[in-house]
Amino acid sequence: MLSHSSAKHTLPEFFISHREAVQAELKEIVNDNPSALDNMLRYHMGWQDEHGHPHHRESGKFVRSTLCLLSCQAVGGDISQTLPAAAALELIHNFSLIHDDIEDASFERHQQPTVWKLWGQPQAINAGDAMFTLAYLALLRLRKKGIADEKVIHSINILTKACAELCEGQYLDIDFESHLDVTISGYLGMIRKKTAALIATSSYLGAYLGTEDKELVNSLSRFGEKLGMAYQIRDDVLGIWGKKENVGKPVGDDISQRKKTLPVVYGLENSTGKHKERLKKLYSQKHIQNEDITEVVAILEQVGARDYAQDLSEQYYQQASAQLDATMLGSSRQAPLRETASFLLERDY
Amino acid sequence: MLSHSSAKHTLPEFFISHREAVQAELKEIVNDNPSALDNMLRYHMGWQDEHGHPHHRESGKFVRSTLCLLSCQAVGGDISQTLPAAAALELIHNFSLIHDDIEDASFERHQQPTVWKLWGQPQAINAGDAMFTLAYLALLRLRKKGIADEKVIHSINILTKACAELCEGQYLDIDFESHLDVTISGYLGMIRKKTAALIATSSYLGAYLGTEDKELVNSLSRFGEKLGMAYQIRDDVLGIWGKKENVGKPVGDDISQRKKTLPVVYGLENSTGKHKERLKKLYSQKHIQNEDITEVVAILEQVGARDYAQDLSEQYYQQASAQLDATMLGSSRQAPLRETASFLLERDY
Repeated sequence: MLSHSSAKHTLPEFFISHREAVQAELKEIVNDNPSALDNMLRYHMGWQDEHGHPHHRESGKFVRSTLCLLSCQAVGGDISQTLPAAAALELIHNFSLIHDDIEDASFERHQQPTVWKLWGQPQAINAGDAMFTLAYLALLRLRKKGIADEKVIHSINILTKACAELCEGQYLDIDFESHLDVTISGYLGMIRKKTAALIATSSYLGAYLGTEDKELVNSLSRFGEKLGMAYQIRDDVLGIWGKKENVGKPVGDDISQRKKTLPVVYGLENSTGKHKERLKKLYSQKHIQNEDITEVVAILEQVGARDYAQDLSEQYYQQASAQLDATMLGSSRQAPLRETASFLLERDY
Repeated sequence: MLSHSSAKHTLPEFFISHREAVQAELKEIVNDNPSALDNMLRYHMGWQDEHGHPHHRESGKFVRSTLCLLSCQAVGGDISQTLPAAAALELIHNFSLIHDDIEDASFERHQQPTVWKLWGQPQAINAGDAMFTLAYLALLRLRKKGIADEKVIHSINILTKACAELCEGQYLDIDFESHLDVTISGYLGMIRKKTAALIATSSYLGAYLGTEDKELVNSLSRFGEKLGMAYQIRDDVLGIWGKKENVGKPVGDDISQRKKTLPVVYGLENSTGKHKERLKKLYSQKHIQNEDITEVVAILEQVGARDYAQDLSEQYYQQASAQLDATMLGSSRQAPLRETASFLLERDY
């Protein structure tokens, strides 16, 4: 079991060094494949400003790539061999963010204008597509690191299937906006695809490239999946109750877009009387107006939606922890993964 | 040299049987990877109507997949082994069409509403992304056909690089809309990426999977590239002077969107006096109005832009033909590729 005393609100230190290694790998991949649309990719990654001037900006936590490298380390693998896979995961995640921002008409990410806001939707679609292709060029670099062809192919297969799930999860997420009858089980199925699949693949690939022990790989994959569920639910909570300066995008966006996040699904299902009526009425409109968002938040709070979501997130975290126990790895081997899980559950950004 | 007596306006017969084989492979790929967004993919492919009812509609010429299979046959390969690559090429092409239609705000394709027109832009972006992932799942099926891992990996590499070029070509195509100073060489560089790269990859992959003779593979790849150039220029001509019932989308769209197709680039560069002034003025607007399109077409015709484009297309066709000669393959082996080239040059749709 994870001890809560180890819970952290700040990014664990090893995130910083791993992120640097992944950033270096990513820059090499982009440099090796020059394209007229690089400006958009470099901007999105926080490497240059919108005018193409060099610049440094934090562009995310690098959860997926870090989890990949930590899983590789946990099974005793060589992370320098695994870096291309870590980079590929980050590229897939970021391609989906670029498209996601268009789909959700989001103006800001990491407190900066989104790619489509600066370059327009058509070119942002192309930028996302280009980043998608880079993910495959990244994976193919595994060969140069001495990874056997069979393992490279299997890695491509696994990452592609996670991508397919991600696309389907995105589809469901948008589809749910116009439905009032989303169930908690429907919601969980959606986030399993939208978020948990790629996070599970992150720990899977790191372990798979680091060991031949299939059971160990599968335990770490399940750890990633449970953690991915906890992560998304925490994200849902932060999307309503987080602080804008932490979250990096306007809080309330999820509500104004009628996103069926867990607190909302719970609220629609478990509210009664005039609360239920009011929620249903507001969520039947095409957009929820700014002045109504506070009311929605208050109702969700009152019906216990926040506590419910936080509890469920914690349950997934406990399940993730149990998967880590099942690996039978020594506790020092497990420690960075535990610290990561703890941070992801408690984080306020 | 290709004899013009063999020129054809209708799809050569072997297109029909090859298309059927590719369609069957594509349906298997979609069936093997069920997803909530399949409806959009099946609709786009012409397999069902917008309500999900089974339906059959021609959804394209299948130029890329047919060229792949014909190249495989020409080098004496087994096309049943190559089908997954042919399907992957078609999936990449179609993913790019789905996104392209959003980017160009096109309402119709094959005389049917486009995916985004029916499901909205956000879900159409997801549909394109999902089709992109299917292309990789298709390529991975090469293994089951007995293709060695090394060849599968090389195929993935080659197709991914073509995709990256395609994305860049799309970017340039849109970027050129707002420029009046696009040169013919700039235009040729753009269509080499946007169109010729994937067509070159089609003949490359078919040959590569069918023979170990690298020179032969490279000659057929260059054949595809030259043919791709001829193909796109012919497309540009049809986009202005074709008939709507043949082309399947409104003729004049290219002009109203200020696309820098070859006739327009030539016209802007080679017109003089009041023709030049008028073209520049019209192309400086954000959209060219319907009532001005006829005038643009008349000016282009008068300055000889149509003849210039048709001639250049013919030159690329001759270069493609020379690459076919260079293969030293027997003439019966070459015949279907020659017939295809001839059709693509002369086609009116």
